[in-house]
Amino acid sequence: MEAKAMVLERFNHPLVLKAFPLPMLKNGEVLVKIEAAGVCGSDVHMWEGRDPRIRLPMIPGHEGAGKIMEMAGEKRDIHGNPLKVGDRVLWSRGVTCGHCYFCKVKMEPSLCPNRWVHGIHTSCAEPPYLTGNYAEYLSLDARITFFKIDPAMDPAVLVPASCSGATAAHAFDLSGMEAGDTVLVQGVGPLGIFAVAFARFRGASQIIVIGGTEERLEMSHSFGATLLLNRHRLSRKERTEAIREATYGRGVDVSFEMAGEPEALKECIGSVRTGGACISAGFGEPHGTVEIDCFHDLGRKNLRLQGVWVSEVRHTHMALQLMASRFQDFAKLITHRLPLEEANEALRMMKTKEAVKAVLLPGTYGSKKRRTE
Amino acid sequence: MEAKAMVLERFNHPLVLKAFPLPMLKNGEVLVKIEAAGVCGSDVHMWEGRDPRIRLPMIPGHEGAGKIMEMAGEKRDIHGNPLKVGDRVLWSRGVTCGHCYFCKVKMEPSLCPNRWVHGIHTSCAEPPYLTGNYAEYLSLDARITFFKIDPAMDPAVLVPASCSGATAAHAFDLSGMEAGDTVLVQGVGPLGIFAVAFARFRGASQIIVIGGTEERLEMSHSFGATLLLNRHRLSRKERTEAIREATYGRGVDVSFEMAGEPEALKECIGSVRTGGACISAGFGEPHGTVEIDCFHDLGRKNLRLQGVWVSEVRHTHMALQLMASRFQDFAKLITHRLPLEEANEALRMMKTKEAVKAVLLPGTYGSKKRRTE
Amino acid sequence: MEAKAMVLERFNHPLVLKAFPLPMLKNGEVLVKIEAAGVCGSDVHMWEGRDPRIRLPMIPGHEGAGKIMEMAGEKRDIHGNPLKVGDRVLWSRGVTCGHCYFCKVKMEPSLCPNRWVHGIHTSCAEPPYLTGNYAEYLSLDARITFFKIDPAMDPAVLVPASCSGATAAHAFDLSGMEAGDTVLVQGVGPLGIFAVAFARFRGASQIIVIGGTEERLEMSHSFGATLLLNRHRLSRKERTEAIREATYGRGVDVSFEMAGEPEALKECIGSVRTGGACISAGFGEPHGTVEIDCFHDLGRKNLRLQGVWVSEVRHTHMALQLMASRFQDFAKLITHRLPLEEANEALRMMKTKEAVKAVLLPGTYGSKKRRTE
Amino acid sequence: MEAKAMVLERFNHPLVLKAFPLPMLKNGEVLVKIEAAGVCGSDVHMWEGRDPRIRLPMIPGHEGAGKIMEMAGEKRDIHGNPLKVGDRVLWSRGVTCGHCYFCKVKMEPSLCPNRWVHGIHTSCAEPPYLTGNYAEYLSLDARITFFKIDPAMDPAVLVPASCSGATAAHAFDLSGMEAGDTVLVQGVGPLGIFAVAFARFRGASQIIVIGGTEERLEMSHSFGATLLLNRHRLSRKERTEAIREATYGRGVDVSFEMAGEPEALKECIGSVRTGGACISAGFGEPHGTVEIDCFHDLGRKNLRLQGVWVSEVRHTHMALQLMASRFQDFAKLITHRLPLEEANEALRMMKTKEAVKAVLLPGTYGSKKRRTE
Repeated sequence: MEAKAMVLERFNHPLVLKAFPLPMLKNGEVLVKIEAAGVCGSDVHMWEGRDPRIRLPMIPGHEGAGKIMEMAGEKRDIHGNPLKVGDRVLWSRGVTCGHCYFCKVKMEPSLCPNRWVHGIHTSCAEPPYLTGNYAEYLSLDARITFFKIDPAMDPAVLVPASCSGATAAHAFDLSGMEAGDTVLVQGVGPLGIFAVAFARFRGASQIIVIGGTEERLEMSHSFGATLLLNRHRLSRKERTEAIREATYGRGVDVSFEMAGEPEALKECIGSVRTGGACISAGFGEPHGTVEIDCFHDLGRKNLRLQGVWVSEVRHTHMALQLMASRFQDFAKLITHRLPLEEANEALRMMKTKEAVKAVLLPGTYGSKKRRTE
Repeated sequence: MEAKAMVLERFNHPLVLKAFPLPMLKNGEVLVKIEAAGVCGSDVHMWEGRDPRIRLPMIPGHEGAGKIMEMAGEKRDIHGNPLKVGDRVLWSRGVTCGHCYFCKVKMEPSLCPNRWVHGIHTSCAEPPYLTGNYAEYLSLDARITFFKIDPAMDPAVLVPASCSGATAAHAFDLSGMEAGDTVLVQGVGPLGIFAVAFARFRGASQIIVIGGTEERLEMSHSFGATLLLNRHRLSRKERTEAIREATYGRGVDVSFEMAGEPEALKECIGSVRTGGACISAGFGEPHGTVEIDCFHDLGRKNLRLQGVWVSEVRHTHMALQLMASRFQDFAKLITHRLPLEEANEALRMMKTKEAVKAVLLPGTYGSKKRRTE
Repeated sequence: MEAKAMVLERFNHPLVLKAFPLPMLKNGEVLVKIEAAGVCGSDVHMWEGRDPRIRLPMIPGHEGAGKIMEMAGEKRDIHGNPLKVGDRVLWSRGVTCGHCYFCKVKMEPSLCPNRWVHGIHTSCAEPPYLTGNYAEYLSLDARITFFKIDPAMDPAVLVPASCSGATAAHAFDLSGMEAGDTVLVQGVGPLGIFAVAFARFRGASQIIVIGGTEERLEMSHSFGATLLLNRHRLSRKERTEAIREATYGRGVDVSFEMAGEPEALKECIGSVRTGGACISAGFGEPHGTVEIDCFHDLGRKNLRLQGVWVSEVRHTHMALQLMASRFQDFAKLITHRLPLEEANEALRMMKTKEAVKAVLLPGTYGSKKRRTE
Repeated sequence: MEAKAMVLERFNHPLVLKAFPLPMLKNGEVLVKIEAAGVCGSDVHMWEGRDPRIRLPMIPGHEGAGKIMEMAGEKRDIHGNPLKVGDRVLWSRGVTCGHCYFCKVKMEPSLCPNRWVHGIHTSCAEPPYLTGNYAEYLSLDARITFFKIDPAMDPAVLVPASCSGATAAHAFDLSGMEAGDTVLVQGVGPLGIFAVAFARFRGASQIIVIGGTEERLEMSHSFGATLLLNRHRLSRKERTEAIREATYGRGVDVSFEMAGEPEALKECIGSVRTGGACISAGFGEPHGTVEIDCFHDLGRKNLRLQGVWVSEVRHTHMALQLMASRFQDFAKLITHRLPLEEANEALRMMKTKEAVKAVLLPGTYGSKKRRTE
């Protein structure tokens, strides 16, 4: 039996539809039928050859949900319930060694130097071939952790939980944000929207959002933003003034840089009150520098500046909990659903920001296989 | 009755010996006879006119210890014991409003916008005149907190507890350092020495120190440093190599920038492992910038960069606990003791780094009033 | 000029209406006109003579909100804004020494051994007489912290922020609850209702409530409870079963004992998962014991059992933030409003649990002075 | 080839020397030659049949160190360095599932419901037979984590790092102890001695120890105890008085129950200051109850009572770091070394407390195979 997949053979050239044999599973491995594969902004960067981790040819896609088709041995979900063929599941995206200083002493496996991800570090040049989510089937490593999905929930809506949702959860985990705090979010892509939703979920009293697209600012409002600042309509100075006015002249308690732009990071640092924290989760690849004044930005300000790299399994759990609490709102985040064969179109839409979030539907969940807008 | 004090009347000109009348205390205030007044590196900067908080004329000196001469009302020390005339005490240096967002909501009074310090923000142009520690007597605000000192302990040794010792304690409080961690300390002035001692006190497994003076590196060794890197003898590359070799190629868990130099901060950031923390406590006044690569230094590294501003009362308590555990070692930190009248000489010695720590002895503790080296 | 107050002269006897002269304020003190005074469950215990802190005669009432009538000196609110006569304010209830180990080293002033509260530790036998909230005017100590109240918000609704709301905030502050956790709340009085609201505010995924009154369970549902367990309809065993079923057999992540009954505490301990936390905030006075099995309840369970004593100013701030986010819901918590003279009736209603929360209205806010139900 | 092992066939009867074939390793498994096997107090309880986890016949021993003889595949130590045959290693004792709520969401694998330990949960009735440390060889599961040991360090001294040392590290990890705190340790067995050493390592200012054996109290003194209270010489009341006197009447900041006796736990709770923590790590099996006064012990005291169950890999790392910092002191903890065949004698010595710590030497480290005292 064979399965179709979209393959990246050459950077900046269209993905190509190919067929691969289904793998023979080894001990602990799982074969899933992909029902929904998220198209991530970083997939665009991989396609452009900007991500040094990529080895060609490869099947992109590190966000997915689907049905278990086969398991090599007994498996359990995160709550200890046995998994069985036919269960609809979502899974953690990173595989870590489980034995190193980061995995075992510091308990931050996301920083494991041997961490790798299906659909990022995997080539399809050799068995088990089906190693990315832009495919009908995916062969998952024995160390992957599984979450059962409520059959009533559209898996296309849930896929971001394993990447942007989890990364936003990680950002909040590191933020020290307290209930009642005022928060600034820079950026209104999926990461930024998740940050707004988490800020609300965790009891922020005010959520200020800076973005460049009116529609996305409106979307952030539906997730709980209390003050919308369009950077095309307001100057940096006007935004600073608006933030100070909303915060008794102090600045925000925590700012979240979710845009991946040095200017955004600079503004995030400048908007934090003395003793506050600036959390930067937007930089997934090399992209510029910021200059920090040792006294004014850092020392006198008692600033905490925290970088965020990817996420832990626990953050996917948190993202799923968040999403379950307001599923209908998150359904709107998925602006485009396309069949597997239109992966190139999906990448284009993410690159142009036409889509907030595009999802490929290789499988057969409901009747939603048709492209919707 | 009158008391002598050394007065800063004009920046960059010698302090002048003057006499002032003793004050009439108001409710809660305390008059102390200064036995030891620490000469801080920042006193040199104030004398040079680099600190915008200074209003002339003023009596410098924010570190002190001495005897209670008079109290306006009942007072208790930090353990709730009544204070009485004749008690030898050390006191917290900052006065905070006690009612604002920083004092009451975030519980970080050190960040109170109305915080002020005897010997920094105080002028001697008007009553109560005696408001700095370079004097025979000092009139303390009702909100100052007191620590009783063991009469067997030389107060000259303890004075740094209220400034560099407390600031180092604050740095560790914010560091997240765990017992067993490997630590880097940049700088071998009093702040750096205290950082080494705290690292040892709190169970660091390795303490790497970078400094420029062989004698001070040796002193840091006596406080627990396990690897000494002289930046005049080793290139930046060699130091980096030495750190990597000592840390299984990872970098240190926490680095402490205690030097106040942008280059030192840059090296501290570069020396931290993925997921580690860089704590910067060296910048007490404006002095340069660092350029941070958003991806390599921050995002990919999951770095925590934490600025430290002054300290809390609790940090003075911690510094005193540390010092009590190894009093003889700390006695060596006080390289020079001078009479009050030689304050200008003490400032010179701090500026040239001839002294690690100089202390003025306006009072009569033991027979130590003579200058020693 | 005089002001009326309800005075507790003899335990278990009706409060008596008396008039007292307005005080001459000392430095930093504030005179407020009480618009709303909360009647707390612990007021009933004081009236019954069960609280050893009480000295007769006294004016009860430790929860209040009202207007500033006079200030001895300049004052600022918690955000640093100047206070002026006529401002509507709410205030922190405890006065702490500001200098001891608890206030300054451990930063937990609520545990200060010298802490005292207007309307609890104060007698009205001598000036300034007006020291409790069951009165037209109240003279507040200089160390009290103020929160300005939005003039559009009914102060009667906000008064619980300074007691049960703040205590619940303290409980959550000590709980280590994470967003996504499952929480159990025991008790559906004001403390329990606030706990449900905080659990929701901070992102609990499930909120299980055990109570004995159907109406109050319904009220907890409107605040976010997801599973209601009536202890009169379900046996202990059935409740345990329901909790296990809702938590994959694990038990809840955090349980909150807000009922002040040993049996409730025992059930809270039994309902927590391995490694979870049981937070007990319900015991405001001596009331029984629980027997803990050293191995099964504590060691093998890796349990954290945390007692909660009163609250900090920061917790009043948190409670106000929470209440502002859902003011209309909290308005329903105030089931009864009565004129000052009916304080005895209000105490009766709290004792019989006829009222969830009763508030006295000595002042003239809106036209709400009439008793409503 | 065969290996000898001491087998527990019947509770309360002497272990029997048996020989087993060396196993065929499966993927990831490791065969080690045991050089030192710690005899733990809980081994005595297993031998007595008091531990419900035991399935007979079995080879006891969950603490060990030795040399790698064979590996099924490539393995790395905790620092990422490749392991090779002949390396001297120590290993973590627990095997956890790596996929459940405890392993992945709460990051506390020690609480994994599927956790098991070589020498506790393992039977020797079937292959791989050699599953406990009281043997010449041990076959280790693929999920075990390894620490390379400095060849200059006697492995017999290090074996407690994987059990009592790690458990003590866990206790401190959960304690919230701050540098400068005053600490009470109840118990002077290996757990108590490790607690004293950790308190010192982490900067406790005072370490009060309660024990019943003068020699062991003296040993705790050599590890840093500052006040020794012999419970046979001082009444409970006298001990309480001594503690209050040492702590300004407050009680200690943190108390550690390391004795496994309900009376000790009760005294630990009573000795903690308001707002302090009592950490109980002594109960490894069912053994009595304590009665807690809901108001005086818990609520009014704002007490934190924390149970501790076993430990994480990171705690073994911490224990090894601690031991490396004062190896000579820890060498004295190992009061008895015996050949494998004298395991019954070793158990007897542990039961009678004749030995503080006994270690079996199945292997050939140095010439220390002879029994020493």
